[in-house]
Amino acid sequence: MTFGVDTKGVYPIAATPFNADMSVDYGSVDRLTDFYHEAGATGMTILGILGEAQKLEPEESLAIARRVIARSRVPVVVGASNPSFAAMRRLAREAMEAGAAGAMLAPASHLRSDEQIATYFQHAVEAIGPDVPWALQDYPLTLSVILSVPMIARIMKEHPSCVMLKAEDWPGLEKISALRRLQTAGELRKFSILTANGGLFLDFEPERGSDGAMTGYAFPDMLVELDRLHSAGERDAAHDLFDAHLPLIRFEQQPGVGLAVRKYVLMRRGAIASDVQRSPRSLLTPAGRSEVDYLLERLARKDPRARL
Amino acid sequence: MTFGVDTKGVYPIAATPFNADMSVDYGSVDRLTDFYHEAGATGMTILGILGEAQKLEPEESLAIARRVIARSRVPVVVGASNPSFAAMRRLAREAMEAGAAGAMLAPASHLRSDEQIATYFQHAVEAIGPDVPWALQDYPLTLSVILSVPMIARIMKEHPSCVMLKAEDWPGLEKISALRRLQTAGELRKFSILTANGGLFLDFEPERGSDGAMTGYAFPDMLVELDRLHSAGERDAAHDLFDAHLPLIRFEQQPGVGLAVRKYVLMRRGAIASDVQRSPRSLLTPAGRSEVDYLLERLARKDPRARL
Amino acid sequence: MTFGVDTKGVYPIAATPFNADMSVDYGSVDRLTDFYHEAGATGMTILGILGEAQKLEPEESLAIARRVIARSRVPVVVGASNPSFAAMRRLAREAMEAGAAGAMLAPASHLRSDEQIATYFQHAVEAIGPDVPWALQDYPLTLSVILSVPMIARIMKEHPSCVMLKAEDWPGLEKISALRRLQTAGELRKFSILTANGGLFLDFEPERGSDGAMTGYAFPDMLVELDRLHSAGERDAAHDLFDAHLPLIRFEQQPGVGLAVRKYVLMRRGAIASDVQRSPRSLLTPAGRSEVDYLLERLARKDPRARL
Amino acid sequence: MTFGVDTKGVYPIAATPFNADMSVDYGSVDRLTDFYHEAGATGMTILGILGEAQKLEPEESLAIARRVIARSRVPVVVGASNPSFAAMRRLAREAMEAGAAGAMLAPASHLRSDEQIATYFQHAVEAIGPDVPWALQDYPLTLSVILSVPMIARIMKEHPSCVMLKAEDWPGLEKISALRRLQTAGELRKFSILTANGGLFLDFEPERGSDGAMTGYAFPDMLVELDRLHSAGERDAAHDLFDAHLPLIRFEQQPGVGLAVRKYVLMRRGAIASDVQRSPRSLLTPAGRSEVDYLLERLARKDPRARL
Repeated sequence: MTFGVDTKGVYPIAATPFNADMSVDYGSVDRLTDFYHEAGATGMTILGILGEAQKLEPEESLAIARRVIARSRVPVVVGASNPSFAAMRRLAREAMEAGAAGAMLAPASHLRSDEQIATYFQHAVEAIGPDVPWALQDYPLTLSVILSVPMIARIMKEHPSCVMLKAEDWPGLEKISALRRLQTAGELRKFSILTANGGLFLDFEPERGSDGAMTGYAFPDMLVELDRLHSAGERDAAHDLFDAHLPLIRFEQQPGVGLAVRKYVLMRRGAIASDVQRSPRSLLTPAGRSEVDYLLERLARKDPRARL
Repeated sequence: MTFGVDTKGVYPIAATPFNADMSVDYGSVDRLTDFYHEAGATGMTILGILGEAQKLEPEESLAIARRVIARSRVPVVVGASNPSFAAMRRLAREAMEAGAAGAMLAPASHLRSDEQIATYFQHAVEAIGPDVPWALQDYPLTLSVILSVPMIARIMKEHPSCVMLKAEDWPGLEKISALRRLQTAGELRKFSILTANGGLFLDFEPERGSDGAMTGYAFPDMLVELDRLHSAGERDAAHDLFDAHLPLIRFEQQPGVGLAVRKYVLMRRGAIASDVQRSPRSLLTPAGRSEVDYLLERLARKDPRARL
Repeated sequence: MTFGVDTKGVYPIAATPFNADMSVDYGSVDRLTDFYHEAGATGMTILGILGEAQKLEPEESLAIARRVIARSRVPVVVGASNPSFAAMRRLAREAMEAGAAGAMLAPASHLRSDEQIATYFQHAVEAIGPDVPWALQDYPLTLSVILSVPMIARIMKEHPSCVMLKAEDWPGLEKISALRRLQTAGELRKFSILTANGGLFLDFEPERGSDGAMTGYAFPDMLVELDRLHSAGERDAAHDLFDAHLPLIRFEQQPGVGLAVRKYVLMRRGAIASDVQRSPRSLLTPAGRSEVDYLLERLARKDPRARL
Repeated sequence: MTFGVDTKGVYPIAATPFNADMSVDYGSVDRLTDFYHEAGATGMTILGILGEAQKLEPEESLAIARRVIARSRVPVVVGASNPSFAAMRRLAREAMEAGAAGAMLAPASHLRSDEQIATYFQHAVEAIGPDVPWALQDYPLTLSVILSVPMIARIMKEHPSCVMLKAEDWPGLEKISALRRLQTAGELRKFSILTANGGLFLDFEPERGSDGAMTGYAFPDMLVELDRLHSAGERDAAHDLFDAHLPLIRFEQQPGVGLAVRKYVLMRRGAIASDVQRSPRSLLTPAGRSEVDYLLERLARKDPRARL
């Protein structure tokens, strides 16, 4: 039960639940922690983009991290991306002291050239300390930063403490294959690859070489089952399960409003008390909510987990 | 059978077929024109981004336009976006003289503020002439330009010759609703909305107020049937058909490599002789091709059109 | 001596001085506060981009604000831009309680359309409270956000608490004229315009209608004199003074390394003890330093303030 | 009199003169060609961004290239950047056949990662042919593409036909030094560096290792004299000359409207008949024109070339 280059399985990206007055809803933080564990998750990732990390005060982030770490029975990875290296350092170090398994770092959005990216991660690893294991987030759709295969290889070479790639480039299948080919050829050291981008290509990613999923889809229990089917080589069954969920996966993967969808489904599933978000936020309209309800109804015909 | 504010139905975005030596394959241009017609399309759109328009010489673009217009039995819309207004003018005017139904215009990628966008379309409409009906392409994912609802309303107000919105913002459902609400309230004139973005939300868009589809999905016959089901109010049947195709729709909608997928499926369906693309291009690897083949096999169990 | 729509004069943008161990050098904070006052500044702006605000911890920002406000004999404007509205609120409110004259707000870098920008400032003003006077920073070169003339007019209309435009678009002269024309025509309410962008066009901006300067050029005393010459209508003398400083102004206005130049000159002038910056930073090489020294020497032949 | 890795001196970037009806003014093309020659230029660069290349029809570009090449007594470099590799190829090859000395290529604006940039130039060199000598344009301010020092080194290594760097990064002095250090260390082959970005740092660039200037400043005769002073080691005199021109250099270097300034000054100097630009364009207002006139008057006191 560690977080390292051999990590496999499902690390859900956790939402951050709020009360109606926009304070952190720690009761729901606990419930959600349990929900992921009961879903069979092998770990958890908190304070990511989905977790509205950029809307939290530093002490709130730390309090949430401490709360989840104390309760979770699986490793907890803490998103530590921050425009300030000092703030990044503080959250990462204090979370590690509280028992976090590692950190997640994304490149800052203004980075363009490979040199800039390399320099950024040198500063970031200096900030959090070279002893903190971390996952590299490759998410150009939201972050606007392109990490090419040679760039990822370079980061992995320069930073032994990077143990995982959170792969969410789009398209991303060939990238996973390319990285795995380099490793097979002995040109790149070992690291774990968990995939994300809302799970939109989770039907094919494991065959390309991924080790599991790190995404916030509101049915982590389905992600765990899908992972099991893939591991068991049950290709058709895996695709059947995936295809049944794809209409909702696609709906949740929308930029902006996807978080509203996700929190709404988590709320309907009883994992959090309320789907409120802090500002700035993109809300689900009544029309959107009824579309999600319809998708859940249709899904329920094939997957009893969606009978709410 | 005209192209105007009342246009409904399916306008496939046509690929541009090439020979192995990278010359335009006019035989396949003809075959593809027939293929869309036999699929039941109400119109066609050529020389879009999917049509590799930016890789064509001016005289090639014009020759393709003339060829398709001469053969097509449905209205042909010609993509005229070009960094040069002079080139935009030339293609639009000559295509109209050859019998095109209208033009399609996208905002140039460097535009940011509403003022810049408004000025751009003033120049563009000046260039093509105010007598040429045109479709406004709203595709931020690829074009990097955000057209807000008030901005679209402004373009529609300032340019009576704009008869259609090619809606492919993402997320896009609320935008369609918002535009339709303005029209219902009498604050915005009538125009057609055909949706695109690979068809990823075609299950819900018609209920939000869209009039049909303008996308390049390699099963235009399915788009036509989906349109018919929506028009007939057969909601569940529409979703069943859509959901069967969604795994492939999602695979084709990938940026870059999506075109390779699309040309490959069109080739397998016999609509074009070869799936070659001009450079720069993103190719389908053997692994990718076998994923598409697998998706087609799975689809064939539910839709006989996919039995190839 | 207030901060409002009638504000005129020079509000230097203050650097943030650090000790060798990267802690805040409060002694130099005091010295720099006095330096600006002795230079004849009519106000001060702290915690801007130049002030390395994004590298400070929340409590450091607040401590600096309190320190400067307590010591300054002129109004202090506090930069409150922050990816988190909660953090923005906290700094702005606590600074106001400590006696700040107002806040400075910049649009977040991801904003594109006018609607997005308008929504952003609605949230921002909600966050800091409608009673806090603020300056709108228009700095597309660094912020990547385009504020058109109608967009600025809209912000001014929607937010009576916005009392100033910090004008640093590039090119920017016509924008100042356009805004002033709208005001003269009665279509736009009154507000102050102080110009920045390193001062690169301070020779012409006052004639276009600006009320003064809000920039970090390391010779604020020269900015004050320039302002006086402009007010006195001494056009040639103003240009002579400006032209003498332009080689250095241009050198300081470089993105990134410009801050190193500025801190180095402030250090050589005795206004701060050290020119260290927090990471990430762009440093002055020995070659760069000797270029600055040479520019200072040349300047000293014309302006005794540069005799160091 | 060749264009190669040893090229030194001044290659003005030529404007493209138009008649009032927006047709190309070939009389002024001739006059401008002579003007640059009489100014002492060692070469010429045509059809760059400044030359409004993207507003020309393919046959116009070629006709201008042929006209200038036939008349010029110095080597002519032809800007061949184009979204279409086919169009790039056609212009470059036909210009070379007409006697051009080489081509200039800029990276396409959508490129981000080093891999993308490397692939782009592989395609571009394939398109123009490996026998065509070319200059690499490094202009992030306008092109939005970052070419790091290792990236430039990689392009130089992969493409022996690249003989020159048109250096216009900003800041750019350290980049020139870094490239020259790599060459001195034997880690990078020889190539010429001409600097641009409007000439804003031409006072220091030669000391950092540049070989001359490739910019469109409307006083190419001053650029030639400055180059001579630098070569002669007359540092103070070089700075005196540069400083006298800096107020105008800075005014011309503004994005967008800078071209209007440049064409206006060229017209006032008699080098072209009219300062009209093709759309889209940024025009000089009466206020702007009188500012330029005032700058010219002030300059004329120090440099008789400005007495118009």
